[in-house]
Amino acid sequence: MKRYGSVIRVRPEKLEEYKRLHADAWPGVLRMIKACHLQNYSIYYHKGLLFSYFEYTGTDYQADMAKMAADPETHRWWEVCKPCQEPLESRAPGEWWADMEEVFHLD
Amino acid sequence: MKRYGSVIRVRPEKLEEYKRLHADAWPGVLRMIKACHLQNYSIYYHKGLLFSYFEYTGTDYQADMAKMAADPETHRWWEVCKPCQEPLESRAPGEWWADMEEVFHLD
Repeated sequence: MKRYGSVIRVRPEKLEEYKRLHADAWPGVLRMIKACHLQNYSIYYHKGLLFSYFEYTGTDYQADMAKMAADPETHRWWEVCKPCQEPLESRAPGEWWADMEEVFHLD
Repeated sequence: MKRYGSVIRVRPEKLEEYKRLHADAWPGVLRMIKACHLQNYSIYYHKGLLFSYFEYTGTDYQADMAKMAADPETHRWWEVCKPCQEPLESRAPGEWWADMEEVFHLD
């Protein structure tokens, strides 16, 4: 199992919409997340920042992420969520959420 | 079980020291974390930000946090870690790490 932490900004005027969307996320999107071997997935907010944490239990992360991106309902979900977000300039090429470095872990 | 996400800044000139400390955290500190019913505890870094995620499995969080704070070795650990950190002005009174709001969770 591999853990992932990542960070992005939320546009202040879109925060409530983002929270509403995620309080009632689309069932097909949630099913696809599970089908792509992500679990224990949380998103936190503070002062313009969103942090996400999830665990990946599959064997081919890139392939699972490609599968998720190819899902039409997930694509529509991202189309409503992405305008709420403002990616960090410090993210790596190709990233939306900026991947963070794990500096500590205790089971 | 309750999940906690929190955020703090790391001083750029102290980042490597902070990472070194956490790559080899003191055994007594780790034992105390476990004794206070915290598990699956991760800290992530990106661009001056530290994000922490952990799960609390006890029944009295305030009492467990007080127990941790009263432990002499944990106190010494915090004395070496805190100078590496720069708390957010937006944190609540009494906080060091700023508690974040959970806006999404999927088991």
